[in-house]
Amino acid sequence: MEHTGPVDVIRWLDPPAVALLDQTRLPAEETEITCRTADELIGAIRRLAVRGAPLLGIAGAYGVALAARTEDDVPAAAKRLADARPTAVNLALGVRRALAAWERTGPAGALEAARALAREEAEASARMAAHGLAALPGGPLRLLTHCNTGALAAGGDGTALAVVLAAHRAGRLRHLWIDETRPLFQGARLTAWEAERAGLPYSVLPDSAAGSLFAAGLVDAVLVGADRVAADGSVANKVGTYPLAVLARHHGVPFIVVAPTTTVDPGTPTGAGIVIERRPAREVTHPGGTAVAPEGADAYNPAFDVTPPELVTAFVSERGITQPVSTGSLRRLPQTHHPDCENEGP
Amino acid sequence: MEHTGPVDVIRWLDPPAVALLDQTRLPAEETEITCRTADELIGAIRRLAVRGAPLLGIAGAYGVALAARTEDDVPAAAKRLADARPTAVNLALGVRRALAAWERTGPAGALEAARALAREEAEASARMAAHGLAALPGGPLRLLTHCNTGALAAGGDGTALAVVLAAHRAGRLRHLWIDETRPLFQGARLTAWEAERAGLPYSVLPDSAAGSLFAAGLVDAVLVGADRVAADGSVANKVGTYPLAVLARHHGVPFIVVAPTTTVDPGTPTGAGIVIERRPAREVTHPGGTAVAPEGADAYNPAFDVTPPELVTAFVSERGITQPVSTGSLRRLPQTHHPDCENEGP
Repeated sequence: MEHTGPVDVIRWLDPPAVALLDQTRLPAEETEITCRTADELIGAIRRLAVRGAPLLGIAGAYGVALAARTEDDVPAAAKRLADARPTAVNLALGVRRALAAWERTGPAGALEAARALAREEAEASARMAAHGLAALPGGPLRLLTHCNTGALAAGGDGTALAVVLAAHRAGRLRHLWIDETRPLFQGARLTAWEAERAGLPYSVLPDSAAGSLFAAGLVDAVLVGADRVAADGSVANKVGTYPLAVLARHHGVPFIVVAPTTTVDPGTPTGAGIVIERRPAREVTHPGGTAVAPEGADAYNPAFDVTPPELVTAFVSERGITQPVSTGSLRRLPQTHHPDCENEGP
Repeated sequence: MEHTGPVDVIRWLDPPAVALLDQTRLPAEETEITCRTADELIGAIRRLAVRGAPLLGIAGAYGVALAARTEDDVPAAAKRLADARPTAVNLALGVRRALAAWERTGPAGALEAARALAREEAEASARMAAHGLAALPGGPLRLLTHCNTGALAAGGDGTALAVVLAAHRAGRLRHLWIDETRPLFQGARLTAWEAERAGLPYSVLPDSAAGSLFAAGLVDAVLVGADRVAADGSVANKVGTYPLAVLARHHGVPFIVVAPTTTVDPGTPTGAGIVIERRPAREVTHPGGTAVAPEGADAYNPAFDVTPPELVTAFVSERGITQPVSTGSLRRLPQTHHPDCENEGP
């Protein structure tokens, strides 16, 4: 691997290589990593240089294309790629798709499959952005978002952040409020970096300061992504999403979830069926590596929370706006080719 | 100044000196600072080695007692002490009280005034704890608190945390949930340290994870302090308090404010009249000194938020339980000798 200057989030190089923006160095440095073998890419995935479920799918597909040009045993490399982060279903799906294409048409097919996946994700993002913009209230908008749902997490402009960018391009974004998103600061680190790069008017805030913004009437809508949506419309997303939904309801502010239909999981009937990952105490007790709690302090650190459908004003996917959100309304969404997809990842 | 072992939060020494637990070193180190002059004490106040409005009042009074034993111009030292942190009204009140006693009866009077203030604060804390325990629901309690309201901020056991400690002593504390309290982590740094020292069962959590606790039915009551209470019962307290009040209401959980009657400010008719201090962006963008946001990122960093009286289940002071909270019910609280007191401080 070698490092170069400012870059795209992910791109294919010739001679064969996959170039990645190293997300672990953001926002301090914009560094590109060039992975010349599948195993270099696996290392980059493991250390979270690339993350975000849809983006991992694209990375996995490019990884197979890379193996097809540099290795003899492509299926073995594909298996190692798919296992690089076991909970990220998109990764395995992207790998599977590129491998199937390789089996049919060889290296060129694998590369075309990866490029097609990236194109499709970008197109889905553009559709979500257009539908999301239509779902927003009129007039100049003060939008609040949580975690990272932009180009660093998904194809194209992302999910919820794609809607923000669309509002900006339409001249309708007055301000973007970015929850810092404890414990891992994805809002401050990644969303603020994307906002800065796109020239958005924005402020970062402690997650707990969102209440003051609602109380002062400074939020016109909340836009968040989703890690998994149960069949009844319950939304599992980064911890801190549910309090925003409750605040939005208390203040009569629209709370809009933006996610591809692949996040709707018909196999999970209700929010109660969503198992919430508990993450290490150290993420809470040692922000940025510095201890802020007593040695050995216990920490409650759930990765996600669940917002019930009755608090969701609208669910926006690449297929349109679903409103109100319920088992019935989600069932009417056309099925897709990735029904078991889970957009998980820090 | 010299440093010694584990210590009380504040104490008087002979030969004349004021010993302080250095709160800037918590929770990593329990270090005592010995201030042998008023100016050493002023330095300690300025760098927040001692903080919390009621505790600053006691420190200021001891500072005058120290000046009375070590300096010629006691009124000049008193003025410097009172100005060490201009927004902390308790500090000036404590200084004024000890100075008045010195004018009447000399150095012994100043010391006795400081000791009397410390005693009164401890007695007020004990009364708040007893009233607060009576205001809580029955059965074993999972209590949620925010910021630091214990012995590190006030006399005796403090305010809201004094109620938690009383529940623990009564065998009724099942668990204490401690909001880390971004941006300055007073919950993780100070309240968790107090909980650890008192042997409480506790967990620290990101402020944004409180929603998950409410949703899971794991919170029986919320206990918070107050920096200022307007005449209508609006409560200004550390940012993040208001979202807890909204969550508590949404889940039917009691939201109890514990603060001395000195925090009720008849000169501020409603919550709208409370000016909220905006603090530096760096507290948000550089937790623990490490940058988590892009260089130059704007941050929204209000020190406090305001909870309207209709979300407050009960206001507990040293004079009893006020329920419901309104201009009328607060007006029936007996007036005290510090009507203009503001319990401000990080």
